Amino acid sequence: MQHVQFYQDEFTSFLNGFTIHREPISLYNPINYILQLGGKRLRPVLTLMAAEIFEENYTTALNAALSIEVFHNFSLVHDDIMDGAPLRRGKETVHEKWNINTGILSGDAMLIMAYQLFESYEPKTFQALAKLFSKTALEVCEGQQYDVDFETRNDVSVSEYLKMIEYKTAVLVGAAMKMGAIVANASEEDQNNIYEFGKNLGIAFQLQDDYLDAFGDPKTFGKQVGGDIIENKKTYLYIKALEFSEDKNKLKLLDLFSKTLDNNDEKIETVKTIFIESGSAEATKTAIEAYTKKAFGVLESMSISEEKRMLLKAFGNNLMNRTV
Amino acid sequence: MQHVQFYQDEFTSFLNGFTIHREPISLYNPINYILQLGGKRLRPVLTLMAAEIFEENYTTALNAALSIEVFHNFSLVHDDIMDGAPLRRGKETVHEKWNINTGILSGDAMLIMAYQLFESYEPKTFQALAKLFSKTALEVCEGQQYDVDFETRNDVSVSEYLKMIEYKTAVLVGAAMKMGAIVANASEEDQNNIYEFGKNLGIAFQLQDDYLDAFGDPKTFGKQVGGDIIENKKTYLYIKALEFSEDKNKLKLLDLFSKTLDNNDEKIETVKTIFIESGSAEATKTAIEAYTKKAFGVLESMSISEEKRMLLKAFGNNLMNRTV
Repeated sequence: MQHVQFYQDEFTSFLNGFTIHREPISLYNPINYILQLGGKRLRPVLTLMAAEIFEENYTTALNAALSIEVFHNFSLVHDDIMDGAPLRRGKETVHEKWNINTGILSGDAMLIMAYQLFESYEPKTFQALAKLFSKTALEVCEGQQYDVDFETRNDVSVSEYLKMIEYKTAVLVGAAMKMGAIVANASEEDQNNIYEFGKNLGIAFQLQDDYLDAFGDPKTFGKQVGGDIIENKKTYLYIKALEFSEDKNKLKLLDLFSKTLDNNDEKIETVKTIFIESGSAEATKTAIEAYTKKAFGVLESMSISEEKRMLLKAFGNNLMNRTV
Repeated sequence: MQHVQFYQDEFTSFLNGFTIHREPISLYNPINYILQLGGKRLRPVLTLMAAEIFEENYTTALNAALSIEVFHNFSLVHDDIMDGAPLRRGKETVHEKWNINTGILSGDAMLIMAYQLFESYEPKTFQALAKLFSKTALEVCEGQQYDVDFETRNDVSVSEYLKMIEYKTAVLVGAAMKMGAIVANASEEDQNNIYEFGKNLGIAFQLQDDYLDAFGDPKTFGKQVGGDIIENKKTYLYIKALEFSEDKNKLKLLDLFSKTLDNNDEKIETVKTIFIESGSAEATKTAIEAYTKKAFGVLESMSISEEKRMLLKAFGNNLMNRTV
């Protein structure tokens, strides 16, 4: 078992060897482009780590890890079209650099290639990986659709929101780890436990993303602080604030979140004050802690060495303490 | 072994039972809609027929057949977005009835569901089906990309064009049949032969589509006669006419195919005259015949009963004589 940096480096060099030289280049160049945009490669690293946790050399899991990363990038390409996003990791998005049709078609090809990356495994492993992948990928689509649907709804409940982020973000984290366990031929119980660990950590991570979007340090938070408020995103903070507020603040929130403004400074300050005073900020922190604990709790029930449990905990803590 | 109509009816009732009742309905309603738009269901019927040719009950192949149909409809949804097409089978396209984002996301979900439909097969069959499916699906994407690339090129060769229609259309016909053979546990040789039969018939069919688009009977040809000429599509007819024509007609063709007109009657007549006088129309007919013969030739080398060979031939002849 090695440290995160090791798996990151190994994965990156494997990914670099994956550059596609097939024709037509107009289909494959955008794929090479998005895969080389960088990022922390968290999901594939989790696959490699999970394989080693269950006593399999990480190299066996490289194709499964790459599949997860290719799928993740497929979803970014299509989501960026749907969101009309011009930038991704500070560079032009695929549909911006080329065009929407290229974004659609190159994305489709990536989804197919993600499945092809399982072909090196023997039939039983192949089927287990592909089944988990399909279930997860479909949930990611459903999560994205819920996210779109929520934009035009004013009655999104906390449980609906949690289901949305679970599907859109967290299940892929769980699946990334479970794939490592599948490749390592871990018991079904271990497979499900590592999935639950990843999924709950994923939910905690996404809730923290919501929190930091409002209360993070502009110097260390990767995105624009207040971005969700500017875009009227119905995050956990917002839903809880609506739930907890008296009529006056409730109406104020609803009013502010129905507007698109040129200058958002006042809006951001007002909304953040309501988030704090209503108790929503505190409730969000509590939820983050609860999901993190739930993830760590699953670890306790797993039959792995104390050293490995500590490593996963360190990884989780590292992830959750990133920028607070 | 039954007649085509039987398999069509069986498949249609199986498809009707597939209506998706999952949440969110905003993701799945468009899928139900496009799958119920109708069509001849040629590809899934071929899967069912192929299974019975190799001594397997067609019911075993229903999930594979449905996968092919779901994939085909996925490609229609995404292609219609790329082409900006308002109508499909006389009804609104998905992105027109809903919006582009819905078209992208519902299409993505369909591609995933196509893989899920293989999950009922045991691991070895599952892997064989999924591998063939991925290879084919990626070729379909490549074919679509070539088609897009060719729009802005003036030097497309006949062999490039043939590769494009092979990938965009014909490989899926071959794969549909090979899937029936895989489900039926046919020998590798038989699997490859039935694939070649379907692929070559698919190429012949697409070339005939090009031919009928210019020279078909408006009463029986499903689409607007002259549609390809209006849209300046570089079909086999066009490429061969450029190859065969003297400078004068060559320049005329190039000029006509660089224009978008309000009234196309004269353009259509002029182009059709050049297609005939250059010998391109005749060359296209020859090519259609050659690919049909190639398909039937493969049948001869297959170790199946004379009755089954005859049935496949009848199917092929039926397909090729549709509207001439």
